[in-house]
Amino acid sequence: MRRTIHTFFEPRSLAVIGASRTPGRPGHVVLQNLLDNGYPGAVYPVNPEAKEILGLRAYPTIASLPDGVEVGIILLPARATPQALRECVAKGMGHIVLSAGGFAEYDDRGGSIQSELSEIIKDTGVRVLGPNTSGHTSTPARLTTSFFPLGKIRPGHLSYIAQTGNFATHTMKLILTSEHYGVARVVGLGNKIDVEESEALEYLGDDPQTRAILIYLESISRPREFLGVASRVTRHKPVIMLKTGATDAGRQAAVAHTAALGTEDRLVDGLLRQAGVARISDYTHLILVGRALSTAPLPRGNRVAVLAPSGAMLVSLADLCIRLELSLPELEAQTIQRLESHSGGFIRLRNPVDIWALTSKCGIKQAYEEGIAAVMHDPNVDAVAAVLMLTADQERPSLSLLLDIAHENPNKPLLLSFTGDWQCIEEFAREAALLGLATFMEIEQPLEVLSVLCRCRRSMDRPS
Amino acid sequence: MRRTIHTFFEPRSLAVIGASRTPGRPGHVVLQNLLDNGYPGAVYPVNPEAKEILGLRAYPTIASLPDGVEVGIILLPARATPQALRECVAKGMGHIVLSAGGFAEYDDRGGSIQSELSEIIKDTGVRVLGPNTSGHTSTPARLTTSFFPLGKIRPGHLSYIAQTGNFATHTMKLILTSEHYGVARVVGLGNKIDVEESEALEYLGDDPQTRAILIYLESISRPREFLGVASRVTRHKPVIMLKTGATDAGRQAAVAHTAALGTEDRLVDGLLRQAGVARISDYTHLILVGRALSTAPLPRGNRVAVLAPSGAMLVSLADLCIRLELSLPELEAQTIQRLESHSGGFIRLRNPVDIWALTSKCGIKQAYEEGIAAVMHDPNVDAVAAVLMLTADQERPSLSLLLDIAHENPNKPLLLSFTGDWQCIEEFAREAALLGLATFMEIEQPLEVLSVLCRCRRSMDRPS
Repeated sequence: MRRTIHTFFEPRSLAVIGASRTPGRPGHVVLQNLLDNGYPGAVYPVNPEAKEILGLRAYPTIASLPDGVEVGIILLPARATPQALRECVAKGMGHIVLSAGGFAEYDDRGGSIQSELSEIIKDTGVRVLGPNTSGHTSTPARLTTSFFPLGKIRPGHLSYIAQTGNFATHTMKLILTSEHYGVARVVGLGNKIDVEESEALEYLGDDPQTRAILIYLESISRPREFLGVASRVTRHKPVIMLKTGATDAGRQAAVAHTAALGTEDRLVDGLLRQAGVARISDYTHLILVGRALSTAPLPRGNRVAVLAPSGAMLVSLADLCIRLELSLPELEAQTIQRLESHSGGFIRLRNPVDIWALTSKCGIKQAYEEGIAAVMHDPNVDAVAAVLMLTADQERPSLSLLLDIAHENPNKPLLLSFTGDWQCIEEFAREAALLGLATFMEIEQPLEVLSVLCRCRRSMDRPS
Repeated sequence: MRRTIHTFFEPRSLAVIGASRTPGRPGHVVLQNLLDNGYPGAVYPVNPEAKEILGLRAYPTIASLPDGVEVGIILLPARATPQALRECVAKGMGHIVLSAGGFAEYDDRGGSIQSELSEIIKDTGVRVLGPNTSGHTSTPARLTTSFFPLGKIRPGHLSYIAQTGNFATHTMKLILTSEHYGVARVVGLGNKIDVEESEALEYLGDDPQTRAILIYLESISRPREFLGVASRVTRHKPVIMLKTGATDAGRQAAVAHTAALGTEDRLVDGLLRQAGVARISDYTHLILVGRALSTAPLPRGNRVAVLAPSGAMLVSLADLCIRLELSLPELEAQTIQRLESHSGGFIRLRNPVDIWALTSKCGIKQAYEEGIAAVMHDPNVDAVAAVLMLTADQERPSLSLLLDIAHENPNKPLLLSFTGDWQCIEEFAREAALLGLATFMEIEQPLEVLSVLCRCRRSMDRPS
C-alpha cells in the first residue's frame, strides 16, 4: 500500500546518505541546516569513513543504520543513487528525498538512471521526492532537507510547491533576508518520479498550517487529477501559480531543467481558470504575492481606490487597473466631501484620488492620513493602493495611524508604494514592513498583487 | 513672428512673478532651486511688498522690472494669471512659464481662464509653457523653474517631455536620490496651450545635449505633425513614450489631470509604431529605461543571452523573452566549450545558461566571471542579462572585471539582476551602479528594458 506523504513533513528520524565532513559540501550543509533549524528528531549521517559529523554519530553504510528510520535523504551522484535507494528500501525507509541532478534533465544516460529509480520503488509503497530536487522544508517540524546554507527558516503560513529547487535555495534565502514573511511547508518536486503537484496540493489543502499555496510548475503531470484537486482547494485557500514553458523557448529550457514536457499553453490556461487557480507570469510575483498574502487580507471584491500625489501616476494606474481587471468605483458623496474639506481646491477630487490637492494645503502627513482613512471607510471600496510621497522637509504620515486604519477595516487590503526622496522612502518602507504593512517599491506592484488576490477571492466565492 | 522655444532652455534672465518670502511656498522654492543650481543669469523676484528675497532684489510689479527680461515664471492663482500674463507680454518678455493649476483640468471656470490665456498670446509671438505645469529644467544652463524643492539637479544626457509636473517634482526627486543618471532638459507641458510635444521633440531631437528622449503623454495635440517629427528624430535618437489614457478609466483620469482628450488607443499605438517611438506601459519604466540608457549601449539586435543560477528562472525568463520579442540565440560551439570547461557536468549547457552548473564546481566568483565573459564575447549574442547569485559565504564576482568585460564589448549591454542574500545584493548593487554598471532589483527588469532598447535600435536601423 502506498504511504501518504505526511511523513516527509513530520518525520521522527532522518538519515543523510552522502553526509560530508567538509563544510560547504551539500552533504555537510544539509546537516548544518537541520541543526540550525533545531530539528528535534534523530539525525543519522551516513558516510563510509567518518565516525562523527557536526557532533552527530555517523554510520558507514545504510545497512548499518538503526531500524525504523523514517526519511532518507540521498545526496549522491546520479550513478550511485539507484544502489543507495535500493538499500534504503531494503532498510525499511518509507520516504526518500533524492537530491542532486544529472537525471533525465541532463542526458539519455541520466534518463535511464531515472527509469531505474522508478522501477526500484514500483509496488513498494515507498514515496520519493525528486530526483533533481534541492529538498523540502517543514517549519512546524523545524525541518529542512535543503543543501543550500539557509540558517533558521522563519515559520509562517504560506507554502510553496515548486518544480525547482529555488525555494529550498537562493530564492528562499532572498525571502528570508529581504521579506518579513515565513513559510509553513516547501515541496521541491524535482523531476517528480513519484510525488507530484496534485498530491502535494491536496496535502497542503488539508494542512492546518498552510493558509495559502504558491506553486511554480513547468509541467502538470496528471491534468485531470490536478483539476479535481485544485477545484476543491481553491474554494477555501488561495492558490497562485507560475506555470512556465508558455513559449517554445520556455519549453525547451524546461526540458533542460526538469525534463518537463510542456503542454500547449492555451490548454494550461483554460485548466487553471477552471480550477480557480490564479495564474501569474512573473517569477518575482511568487515573492510579491507572498508578501501581500502574509500582510493583507483578501479583498471582498475588485473595487479599488487609488491615491497618488500626481495626476500622471493616477492616469497610468487607472489604465493598469483596467488591464488587470480591477475596477475604480465612484466614491460616496461623504468621502468626496471629506477629501474636499482638506483640499486646496484646484484639483477635481474623484477616484483615483489626486492627493496633491490635499498635500499642497495641509501637508503630506495630514493629506495621506485623512485621504487613506476616507477611502478605506468608503463602502464602495474593497481595497486601497496608495502611493505615498515622502520628502525630507515634510512630516511623514503616522505609521501607527495607518496601522489603525488597516485594522479597523480587516477585510480591506491597504497596499503602499512610494515616490519622492529615496532615503525617506527606504526608511519608511522598512519600518512599515516591520509593523506588518504591505509595502512595495514600485507603484505598479500593489495593483499587480491586488489583481491576484481578487482572483483568489473570486475562486473562493464561486458557486460549487 | 513666433519665437522658437530655445530661450526657455538658455535664458539670460528670469522674472519670478509671485515670488514669496515664506520658505516652502512655491514662489520661494523656485528661487531657492535657481540658487541651488547656480543659475548664472539674472533673477528678478516680483512681489508687491518685499524689498529683497533670498538676497535678490525684489520688484513690486511686472511693470517695474528692468527691460529685456527673457523668461517670466508666473506662480499665481489661476484667476490672477491672465492679468500677469498681459503685463509680461506688455513688458516684452517672449517666454512665459505658467505654473499652478486650476485651469481646464479643474472646471469650466478654469477652462474660460485658459481660453483667455490663449487669447492674450495670440498673434504676439510670445511662447508659453503650461498652464498647469510645475516647470521645466535645463541643466546645461543650470536652470530649473520647478516649485518643488529639488536641490542641485544632476546634469546628464537624457531629456524628458512630460504632460505632467512629476519630472519637475517628486519623480525627479526620486531620480536624483535613487538613480545615478542625470538629465539634460525636462519640459513640463501641462495643459499645453502653446508649446506641445511635437515642437518639444523637434527641439530635443536637434539638441546636442540630449542623447535620448523619454516622453509621458496623455494626449497628442497634432498627431500628423507628431508623426512627422518623431519619424525623423527616432532615426538618430531613442525616443520612448508612456502614452496613458489607454483605457476609458485612464482617459477619464486624464481629463481631471490635464484636460487631455485621449484618442482611441489603437490609433495611438499605430501612430507610435509608424513613428519609430518605443511605447512602454509602466510609469516605473520611465525611470528604469532611463537607467539602462544612461549606463548601457543600445544593442545591435535582439539576440539575448540569459544567465541565471536556476533552471526555473531561466524557463520563466525564456518565456518572458519571447513575450518581449527578444530572441535566445544558440551559442557558438566555442562558447559552450568554454562554459563546459568550468561545469560540474550535470546540467546541460545552452542559452539560457544555467550557471548553477558552474557555481557548484568553481564557486560563484569564477562561475559568473567566466560565464559572463564567454557569452559577452559570443558573436551570436547582442546583449546579456545575468542574474547574479550572491551569498555571504562565497566570494562575489569582481566588479572591475565585469566592467572590463562590458568595456571590451562597447555595443553589448550587460544588465545585472540578483538573487540570494539581500544584504550582499544591496551592497553589490550599490557599488556596481556607482561604477556605471546597469543593475536592476528584479530579474524581469533587465529583459523588460532590453526590449525597449531593441525597439529603439530597430527604429534607428529602419530604411528611410
